[in-house]
Amino acid sequence: MASASKKVHVTELVLRDGHQSLLATRMRTEDMLPVCDRIDRAGFWSAEAWGGATFDACIRFLKEDPWERLRKLRKALPNTPIQMLLRGQNLLGYRHYSDDVVEAFVKKAAENGVEVFRIFDAMNDLRNLRTSVAAVIKSGKHAQGAICYTTSPVHTTEHFIEQARELADMGCHSIAIKDMAGLLTPPRAAELFEALAKAVKLPLHFHSHTTVGVANISMYKAVEHGARHVDTTISSLSWGTSHSPTESMVAAFQGTPYDTGLDLPLLQEIGAYFREVRKKYHQFESEYAEIDTRVIVNQVPGGMISNLSNQLKEQGALSRMNEVLAEIPRVREDLGFPPLVTPTSQIVGTQAVLNVLTGQRYKSITNEVKMYLQGRYGRAPGPVNETVRKLAIGDEEVITCRPADRLKPEMHRLRDEVGELAKSEEDALTYAMFPEIGRKLLEERAAGTLKPEELKPRGVEAAPGTAPALAPT
Amino acid sequence: MASASKKVHVTELVLRDGHQSLLATRMRTEDMLPVCDRIDRAGFWSAEAWGGATFDACIRFLKEDPWERLRKLRKALPNTPIQMLLRGQNLLGYRHYSDDVVEAFVKKAAENGVEVFRIFDAMNDLRNLRTSVAAVIKSGKHAQGAICYTTSPVHTTEHFIEQARELADMGCHSIAIKDMAGLLTPPRAAELFEALAKAVKLPLHFHSHTTVGVANISMYKAVEHGARHVDTTISSLSWGTSHSPTESMVAAFQGTPYDTGLDLPLLQEIGAYFREVRKKYHQFESEYAEIDTRVIVNQVPGGMISNLSNQLKEQGALSRMNEVLAEIPRVREDLGFPPLVTPTSQIVGTQAVLNVLTGQRYKSITNEVKMYLQGRYGRAPGPVNETVRKLAIGDEEVITCRPADRLKPEMHRLRDEVGELAKSEEDALTYAMFPEIGRKLLEERAAGTLKPEELKPRGVEAAPGTAPALAPT
Ligand SMILES: [Co+2]
Ligand SMILES: [Co+2]
Repeated sequence: MASASKKVHVTELVLRDGHQSLLATRMRTEDMLPVCDRIDRAGFWSAEAWGGATFDACIRFLKEDPWERLRKLRKALPNTPIQMLLRGQNLLGYRHYSDDVVEAFVKKAAENGVEVFRIFDAMNDLRNLRTSVAAVIKSGKHAQGAICYTTSPVHTTEHFIEQARELADMGCHSIAIKDMAGLLTPPRAAELFEALAKAVKLPLHFHSHTTVGVANISMYKAVEHGARHVDTTISSLSWGTSHSPTESMVAAFQGTPYDTGLDLPLLQEIGAYFREVRKKYHQFESEYAEIDTRVIVNQVPGGMISNLSNQLKEQGALSRMNEVLAEIPRVREDLGFPPLVTPTSQIVGTQAVLNVLTGQRYKSITNEVKMYLQGRYGRAPGPVNETVRKLAIGDEEVITCRPADRLKPEMHRLRDEVGELAKSEEDALTYAMFPEIGRKLLEERAAGTLKPEELKPRGVEAAPGTAPALAPT
Repeated sequence: MASASKKVHVTELVLRDGHQSLLATRMRTEDMLPVCDRIDRAGFWSAEAWGGATFDACIRFLKEDPWERLRKLRKALPNTPIQMLLRGQNLLGYRHYSDDVVEAFVKKAAENGVEVFRIFDAMNDLRNLRTSVAAVIKSGKHAQGAICYTTSPVHTTEHFIEQARELADMGCHSIAIKDMAGLLTPPRAAELFEALAKAVKLPLHFHSHTTVGVANISMYKAVEHGARHVDTTISSLSWGTSHSPTESMVAAFQGTPYDTGLDLPLLQEIGAYFREVRKKYHQFESEYAEIDTRVIVNQVPGGMISNLSNQLKEQGALSRMNEVLAEIPRVREDLGFPPLVTPTSQIVGTQAVLNVLTGQRYKSITNEVKMYLQGRYGRAPGPVNETVRKLAIGDEEVITCRPADRLKPEMHRLRDEVGELAKSEEDALTYAMFPEIGRKLLEERAAGTLKPEELKPRGVEAAPGTAPALAPT
């Protein structure tokens, strides 16, 4: 064991991915602020606190202005860089935006307090990261390129190395391996990080989920083999579909060259605080948030199995489940092995159900599969099945360029559309991300009628399955 | 990485320590038997299914004859060795028994179906293991010597090696490191197992708890450094004060020389089964079963902190908690650094409270501390503070021999006492372990009035804190 210090830096996820994973992204700013002084004293490399599904949840359910949250957190965390998760050219919305919207968004996020931008694309089409990475660099902030981890014949170590090199060439300040499904096993983590550390000179971050229950070990192996940054969440919002517990990982690295140097008693206070906060949101707890190793066996994430099961039940076809589970890897192969994450998990899953229930593969093809095969989500990781493409879109044009290259500037139009309702450029961006619910938020704010969804008192259980199952990021 | 196979063998804990850790040992035989065919097919090295607190819980709460449970499990698990946890000269009771009782008990346990005996002493006084190890060997069964892991200046790697050698000399077939508090960190696990593997040629087992949240990683490091046997529990009864999840650890070792060879889909079925079973026992779930790293900081296990907190609250002295937490390590040092486990955790904790509340250390001394300092629990791991001993027992005799050496044969007397109520030697042993509740069980069985405690329907919550906090083993 090397004796030189190889200190591990910690990104605390509780303010974003922790509650996104376990409490349907419902934690309110009022429950974050009282503990921020302690989080700020802990010495985290960064606190992930914005982006991902939080923007949507603020607007849709909590009736909070997400920009206002960001400014409050920035003020409450003067010594800790705030990190956000950004979906590349999708930003925080669900479509590709033109470059001028991406640039405006990044500029405002940076001005309002984001220091570290973790940027990814669900397809790992790195062209979809280019504009946002450049905008972050222009803002003088930290641009982190993230690669979604998945398994397939094309997702070799060499494939990931190539992507890391491309991100380095793009000017990224660090690289993250982002394992949404918690798939990365210890031996694979050792191999991958060893290779990445040799190939690129940038700091390597590891973001995982404990869904499969191997992430703690994989994180340890990743660090032994070159990762210097780990993502964890405070213990009271850890484990299951969430993340490795901060206090435990800090304890695990004590007495090694990787010691984080973080103060365990202070972390324990933060953990005790969120143990109480969690109770307030009990209605959003889901029984599907527990450890589930099925993805290791059939490549289908647990959350996706639950959704499929509901879909089949509605059609009185639950008995076809095993056929669907066997069809999913075939459809995924036909589509060039996309990572199974929003939106690709739905695209693949729904087509697999159709292929089974209609009795003939691709007899019926969804619009999303057609758009996918037109290249409108970006480039697939591997080659797509051309026979299937022909069946789906005939001789229609296939986009081979970056999807946003076909989009004209639209910020001006968006500003015009929202008009007087927007009191700032930030308001216009809120509208840009979510035209319908964003407008509604601005209207209600103007009318003074903002009212968050109701929280059920303790002891009142939510009806089973009412907590929305969001795909993890 | 070595490429030769170093297959890891798995002991499944769900039938004993899993539910002892999370459900106050309340799982009934009727909820074990339906899944035994699947457990039996899984290929576990052993299934821990008897001993520990299960004997007590069967008699006290479930009104089951523990011997009957053993025979049923033996029949339902024809291909899987049943393992039990035995507290050395205490057997499954709470006092030292004479050697003839120990011999009779081991003989009957072997006859009724126990194949692997894990034997330990709470003080790590290995003299308290001698009689039971010899009895197991005489029965032709597997004798495993277990060493309680703890931290202190005397609990050096050399100390543990010496104990392992002693167990080997005693004729044990394997050695277990038994980490009840989940204290063993990854670097310490690597060091300890590497040293043990060099020092003794016996198979090394690792039993831990995930209380601190580091056990999965420590287990992986233990295996990389010489352990060939790990204890896990099926995922739906894993984590927190319980253990590393079986499915996850099997997945973690896949693709390494340590591959367990176990079938993940079969394990997933077993996990799904116990997910439903767990719901039936919801009233025994405790909020103190969650991850808690405090023991790493102040040497005091989380469960002990909860008990102390209740104790201080009753005396209106909750504000003295920090003084008590600081006093505990000092009392433990005065007593020669016993592992903090039943009964030593109570002995040390109560004396620490007295030392703080009376305003003068050892002004008042409990009877248990007096007995301890008389050597009546066995030999302490380190030297005890002679000044404190003098204060406690003056010039009274100190036992330096094995406590059971002073006990006359008593099996005959016990058989006489229970008389006609005992229909077998097993019944007499039930009475021997628990004279009061054991006799009651036999009486109710004779009268046909056995009735297990009531289980609350789902949705009815237990009053907080009513689930008894048993010390983990
Ligand atoms: Co995530
Ligand atoms: Co145990």
